[in-house]
Amino acid sequence: MSNQLLVHIKKFADVSEDDFATILSFFEPLYLKKKECLLEEGQLCRRNFFVLKGCLRMYFLKETGIEQTTQFAIENWWMTDNLSFMQQKPSSFYIETVESSEVLAISYDAQEKMLAQFPQMERYFRKVYERAFAASQLRIKYINDYSREEMYLYFAKVQPAFLQRVPQYMLASYLGFTPEYLSEIKKKHLKSDFL
Amino acid sequence: MSNQLLVHIKKFADVSEDDFATILSFFEPLYLKKKECLLEEGQLCRRNFFVLKGCLRMYFLKETGIEQTTQFAIENWWMTDNLSFMQQKPSSFYIETVESSEVLAISYDAQEKMLAQFPQMERYFRKVYERAFAASQLRIKYINDYSREEMYLYFAKVQPAFLQRVPQYMLASYLGFTPEYLSEIKKKHLKSDFL
Repeated sequence: MSNQLLVHIKKFADVSEDDFATILSFFEPLYLKKKECLLEEGQLCRRNFFVLKGCLRMYFLKETGIEQTTQFAIENWWMTDNLSFMQQKPSSFYIETVESSEVLAISYDAQEKMLAQFPQMERYFRKVYERAFAASQLRIKYINDYSREEMYLYFAKVQPAFLQRVPQYMLASYLGFTPEYLSEIKKKHLKSDFL
Repeated sequence: MSNQLLVHIKKFADVSEDDFATILSFFEPLYLKKKECLLEEGQLCRRNFFVLKGCLRMYFLKETGIEQTTQFAIENWWMTDNLSFMQQKPSSFYIETVESSEVLAISYDAQEKMLAQFPQMERYFRKVYERAFAASQLRIKYINDYSREEMYLYFAKVQPAFLQRVPQYMLASYLGFTPEYLSEIKKKHLKSDFL
């Protein structure tokens, strides 16, 4: 389990196995069932989550009561409400497991202490956030540029595992579809190269 | 001029004035006219830009030939096409000045060297990207949650300086409006508290 985060860190930063043993002690391992809630709207988001196994999603409640999914995190992805986590202010999001999951959780204070003790982890997190922001720049482009059908086909191409893994109503919500519209598009492209 | 970046760095990281003199030597100062192009679609995005004075915008060309603005950067904001910059691959965006601007530009190689020599700058960039990503999480929420009119009112509330500063057709493009629709909304709210 622990090795998985070390492998991910080593992609970006120089951390010894001895250092990593101490770094890992700042985290709490969580073994979660499907649909367990990690954060609710109105709470302070006290933890940052690294997914070892499983899948998390972030969503918010629209005025109509509909859950709007804005983000997924699978193995080796980080997830938190960054604004709430950074500023320790109430969140406007929910985070819950999509399937049974194993997660490493680190609190804001533990993360600050860990970064002070192991400044090379600043490089790791710089790279993690740089990539996350780069992905969001591209996402804003696609939201403005792609039709709904093109959004689905792009998603199917770059994230094929999600199509099998994530319940269709969540995928539809993430893409801004109704589940019925998603079902229509899937039927239409069932024999295409994308699926 | 130089002091402005130092003040911004010191918000997040511990850098001495002596260190900063060397850090600054990795940057190239640019004095730009209005509508000068810093990046074109298809080019490698070789530089990261810190705005000392003025305003930059990032946009892409839709198939119809329309310019879709996705991001602005004013004083003390960073701007680059992060994916193209990180991976040194061709960009799908344009970056240009909205008004005459003073900018500090740093190349990918110079940034890597600077970070190797001054690892405390990793903390600074970690914070910069963490905040940028947090803002994009909230932006995705608003895109999904707010009506166009609400988007405008929110923008007017949190970024009032932009309303005066940015040409209306660019603001309309950023918000996903036609210029005519933006004009209607502005008239409607002319006497409200937001303006």
